[in-house]
Amino acid sequence: MSMTDPVGDMLTRIRNGQRANKSTVKSPASSLRANVLEVLKREGYIRGYERVDVRPGVAELSIELKYHEGQPVIREISRVSTPGRRVYSKIADLRRVANGLGITILSTPRGVMSDTEARAQNVGGEVLCEVF
Amino acid sequence: MSMTDPVGDMLTRIRNGQRANKSTVKSPASSLRANVLEVLKREGYIRGYERVDVRPGVAELSIELKYHEGQPVIREISRVSTPGRRVYSKIADLRRVANGLGITILSTPRGVMSDTEARAQNVGGEVLCEVF
Repeated sequence: MSMTDPVGDMLTRIRNGQRANKSTVKSPASSLRANVLEVLKREGYIRGYERVDVRPGVAELSIELKYHEGQPVIREISRVSTPGRRVYSKIADLRRVANGLGITILSTPRGVMSDTEARAQNVGGEVLCEVF
Repeated sequence: MSMTDPVGDMLTRIRNGQRANKSTVKSPASSLRANVLEVLKREGYIRGYERVDVRPGVAELSIELKYHEGQPVIREISRVSTPGRRVYSKIADLRRVANGLGITILSTPRGVMSDTEARAQNVGGEVLCEVF
């Protein structure tokens, strides 16, 4: 983890933030991390996120966490592929998360997207994380 | 599985053969399957294997299973990477099998080898299967 795995690091911050009932958490910015947040937002798992310039050349992502009736909306968010152990899936072979209640986020040749979107476009890719 | 995953199919035959206390099992031949058997033999998990020409253009691998005091030597043999879900690992990030009692078989740029061999050569690759 830590900075050898920037996406994993951001997911850990989100997981810890939800457990501690925080309204926002911060993460160093990168386009891959922003793309993952875009999917989380589109799928209703976070309220939103914002890119903030901290000082010249250093940007942060401020992530607004979501709660429903006082409970974290994200129950589990787990990394699948890591820089040290890469996992790639054909779309037909992708596992369902939490019996179809959760989502998988994939990095595909057509961009970072949810498994639902990837199925619609019939593309597979690197299995970034599973959320439910 | 079946023939969409030839290595997985061979591992299933070995697993079933050991459970049924068979002395040999057969599998269609291929060089990747033979390379996996070579590692299993080198690491002491099978007695040996032989390539047999069944008829022109069709070859089989005859695999001699191993037992110790009446018990199968292979307790578990599980596929990791599959054609539909490929798993690649850096050698530093490779998980130990059964607390180091088992082995992982990897397909690396220097050939198919056990994790011990891969560590010695400092190469990672596709994680074909885990055995213990």
